[in-house]
Amino acid sequence: MDHFKVNQKDIFFILKDQLEYGGLCKLDRYRALTEDALDLLVTEAIRFAKGVVAPLNEIGERQGVAFENGRVTCPDEFREVFQSYGRHGWTAAARDSEYGGQGFPHMMRIVINDFMYGACQSFNMAPSLTHGAAHLIESFGTEALKQAFVPRMYDGTFSGTMCLTEPEAGSNLAATQTMAYPEDGDHYRICGNKIFISWGEHDIADNIVHLILARIEGAPAGVKGISLFAVPKYRLNADGSPGEPNDVVCTGIEDKLGVHASPTAALTFGAKNKCIGYLCGEPNKGLAHMFQMMNSARINTGVSGMTLASIAYQNALAYARQRVQGADVAKRKTGSVPIIDHPDVRRMLLWMKAAVDGMRSMIYTAAFWEDLARESNDTETRKHYQALTDFMTPIVKAYCSDTGFRVCETAMQCLGGYGYCRDYPVEQCLRDAKIMSLYEGTNGIQSLDLMGRKMRINNGAPYHAFITKLMSFCDQYKDHKGVGSRVRALASACRAVQHMAEEMTARSESDPLQWASYTFPALLCFGELVMVWRLLDMARIAYGPSLQKGRKNDFFRGKVAQATFFSDITLSHTIERARTCMRDGREIVEIPDTAF
Amino acid sequence: MDHFKVNQKDIFFILKDQLEYGGLCKLDRYRALTEDALDLLVTEAIRFAKGVVAPLNEIGERQGVAFENGRVTCPDEFREVFQSYGRHGWTAAARDSEYGGQGFPHMMRIVINDFMYGACQSFNMAPSLTHGAAHLIESFGTEALKQAFVPRMYDGTFSGTMCLTEPEAGSNLAATQTMAYPEDGDHYRICGNKIFISWGEHDIADNIVHLILARIEGAPAGVKGISLFAVPKYRLNADGSPGEPNDVVCTGIEDKLGVHASPTAALTFGAKNKCIGYLCGEPNKGLAHMFQMMNSARINTGVSGMTLASIAYQNALAYARQRVQGADVAKRKTGSVPIIDHPDVRRMLLWMKAAVDGMRSMIYTAAFWEDLARESNDTETRKHYQALTDFMTPIVKAYCSDTGFRVCETAMQCLGGYGYCRDYPVEQCLRDAKIMSLYEGTNGIQSLDLMGRKMRINNGAPYHAFITKLMSFCDQYKDHKGVGSRVRALASACRAVQHMAEEMTARSESDPLQWASYTFPALLCFGELVMVWRLLDMARIAYGPSLQKGRKNDFFRGKVAQATFFSDITLSHTIERARTCMRDGREIVEIPDTAF
Repeated sequence: MDHFKVNQKDIFFILKDQLEYGGLCKLDRYRALTEDALDLLVTEAIRFAKGVVAPLNEIGERQGVAFENGRVTCPDEFREVFQSYGRHGWTAAARDSEYGGQGFPHMMRIVINDFMYGACQSFNMAPSLTHGAAHLIESFGTEALKQAFVPRMYDGTFSGTMCLTEPEAGSNLAATQTMAYPEDGDHYRICGNKIFISWGEHDIADNIVHLILARIEGAPAGVKGISLFAVPKYRLNADGSPGEPNDVVCTGIEDKLGVHASPTAALTFGAKNKCIGYLCGEPNKGLAHMFQMMNSARINTGVSGMTLASIAYQNALAYARQRVQGADVAKRKTGSVPIIDHPDVRRMLLWMKAAVDGMRSMIYTAAFWEDLARESNDTETRKHYQALTDFMTPIVKAYCSDTGFRVCETAMQCLGGYGYCRDYPVEQCLRDAKIMSLYEGTNGIQSLDLMGRKMRINNGAPYHAFITKLMSFCDQYKDHKGVGSRVRALASACRAVQHMAEEMTARSESDPLQWASYTFPALLCFGELVMVWRLLDMARIAYGPSLQKGRKNDFFRGKVAQATFFSDITLSHTIERARTCMRDGREIVEIPDTAF
Repeated sequence: MDHFKVNQKDIFFILKDQLEYGGLCKLDRYRALTEDALDLLVTEAIRFAKGVVAPLNEIGERQGVAFENGRVTCPDEFREVFQSYGRHGWTAAARDSEYGGQGFPHMMRIVINDFMYGACQSFNMAPSLTHGAAHLIESFGTEALKQAFVPRMYDGTFSGTMCLTEPEAGSNLAATQTMAYPEDGDHYRICGNKIFISWGEHDIADNIVHLILARIEGAPAGVKGISLFAVPKYRLNADGSPGEPNDVVCTGIEDKLGVHASPTAALTFGAKNKCIGYLCGEPNKGLAHMFQMMNSARINTGVSGMTLASIAYQNALAYARQRVQGADVAKRKTGSVPIIDHPDVRRMLLWMKAAVDGMRSMIYTAAFWEDLARESNDTETRKHYQALTDFMTPIVKAYCSDTGFRVCETAMQCLGGYGYCRDYPVEQCLRDAKIMSLYEGTNGIQSLDLMGRKMRINNGAPYHAFITKLMSFCDQYKDHKGVGSRVRALASACRAVQHMAEEMTARSESDPLQWASYTFPALLCFGELVMVWRLLDMARIAYGPSLQKGRKNDFFRGKVAQATFFSDITLSHTIERARTCMRDGREIVEIPDTAF
């Protein structure tokens, strides 16, 4: 089953024509790079994803992972590829060379993950989490901690995790109960239980470095008393190799709807009081530090939703081209025709094409902004792009996870009954994609972040930066001869959403229950604005070539068609939903518990 | 895992307060029945579903079904319950007593299926298909055929199937290639392959009676040359007991996303040229006859989508009441609160409540109409209700399967990460529900039926009957003091959808490609009209009691709240979608194949 399919032309159109990502090479950090080098990285990433990672998808799904006596066994091939992935530089492609990184732009990590998650979601969680954990140590750890762990994590010798969730502290980290007791020397004694730890136990790396939230004895209650620790599965010998076990015990793994080859572990730290951990960063600042990894994980969750949708769409498209069934509704051909000729199938394909391309552009754009936020020369520019990145994070996470799932559902519909069968890859995409709306903060929590914190921090800077960006696009292209009318429709929708967002923000103080009843549909409105914006932006670039005759311009015609179609069937719903978010009806708040 | 949860009060509110189903007892066929007898049947069905059928759900999911050497093995408990189900009269509750039925109204079969599918979707497909197959023989077979098969199918000794799909004839029955060669005596020799046959092979009954579409040698091409045959797995001995094998061989079963305990078989008929079948009904009228079973299966598909949604909702509700996590957003309570207190969770619960209650009312209403279509005394009344039933069938099938899946997705969201784990029943609901949009005619095909055939047959009688029914409700309650404003909104939406439907019908001749591009969103518009109508109808009944103080009236408050909330967040989208269906943009038709 060759599920991994990617349209390179679509990828490069976003990177080169839309974002002009070669421009990043003018930033100080990337002066040694060229656009050709970035292009080569993309094609090599696709080649590695297709040739090395993609075969794991079927192996992992068939074989799964096994738990016995505290140990988790994975398919042998996973260990080989994990090490090869690190050695080939994919884990730390965007990190500085000091600890083993390749020095590529931050956005390239997202682009690489697009292909690697698409090739095998279950597998790629391992190097992606490893990157996030090592990056945390690189950002906040002592020099000794960095030297001990980071290079070995980047090169595929060790893996890493993020340990946040506890049985009674799922979405609510304030309830974290894991404890850290200071000891003589450089370490703490760790004691507690964590659940839902992706790749929390396995046999694909020589050691596992858990980045864990815990309370130092005597710390304040709530989120202001949480610190970050690095806790290895095996303590290190003097030469840095893994030594004796560190009293981290896996008590079980979850039996899940999907991502079957990714072990989701329950872990006990310090059951024998012999688990040591190293403080990473400042005491009681653990949550703030962890947000570096959490934000990155949230973006990656959106990437996964998008790329699984992309795989599902490409497979539905391939099926629709070859499956012959039923007569042409307009009798253009005699006999049975490929189902891509049936308008209802074509409607689904066009919507999926637009959804995938729009999400990919949304994500790549946010990733591009993240580079500008980190590496621009002047403070104001950095602040501006950081504000944009802050605003986009919950949108990317929630919108792309929900829409990605919807695309997988639609792809299955194109395959009819075959879509329900495991012989075809779409049902696995659907199952794997479903976790994206649930983990790394449920989509409801993302909506509270967007409509709460992100509307208010820095006097609303993230929101204002976003609206300004969108409206300046609208101003610039409102009279564009190809897409002007849709740009004007986007501007109207943007004003409606602005009105809603500002009304809701006022309401968040005066009537927090009513506000919180509608944060999620409000987030969807923002997601749709971004989608239409990115699609129209691609369409206006494609417009000129789309008018020229000849099959080679079909690609550009597709960009225009997906944009006008998606805009027209989306924006009026955006406006209506924005209106709904401000409605006075209080059913959600007032319905008695016993009335459900 | 006690997944089977049902709110009897909701069920009886629809049956008694909304439909006044006791009125059926005035029809000739039901003169011996009373409303009390119907009520008792409902409570007994729930008791049987909960006590006997529901335990199969976990057994079936854990154990699954095994294929080896042409045989399919099911859990032992399935055989016991299948026989008990028949013996207790559930299979033929709505059939006449002549061949073993119980003589209850036709609609009771739907009500019973609501609980039985909710208890175990995989299992209940067996008796439900058996009913449909036996009913076909009862309707169209010779007396000998009836005597030989029908009583044994109704009493759980034999099971039945419907065999339509072939490898190259999935949705397109015109391509059916299975052949029937006339022989001396009363039978034909059957030769062909069928796939995707639910419960096509198993060990839970003594014989399997396949109702199969095939072409009699020399028959015309296309759908007008298809005949219906009854083909048993074992030929019958003189005493009616199963004798020698009839050359029907199972060559494999599908590995599927869900309904794991329902074997989906590929069958070869007559590989050794020793398979005999009995013509059922007139030659070359097979498809018309089969439509009796197909229409019934389509309604049942909607029932499954709805009831799996109901189970998922009830489990999400139970979870939301007991899971304590996070602080109250309005600080009404201190400390952590049950998540039902979080407005975003409550929004999902209220939407699910409305979706489930609306779908159930839609389905029960259609079932009630079916009784009036069959059993009313005068021809005009029967015709009128048959027209309504015809119009509702594709809506029930497609709307309830898609919305049912959406409810399962939303229920999972309420459970957060736990929803993704197999320890909780919601993920199975989601997987089982997904088949509903795919089989018994994909939802796209339902939309072609609705916007094509059902708009045109009998000069549009189904459509006109539907619109008249809806508008007369709007006229009657447009000034209702509780829900009048929403009734007027429904009337506006109805007019918008009418305009769209009539425009589209004109377009179906002049521009069939553009028409077929939008039949599916058009079907959704009709589905939403029905939902709001049924919810508002319940709300106007509940309105009086909802105003009275006291906890016992919370139930009625819930009916009003779900209706106003659902109307307000739905109807404006209905209107916008109806507009989209008439748009001039031709992207779907004109996008070049190579542009995808």
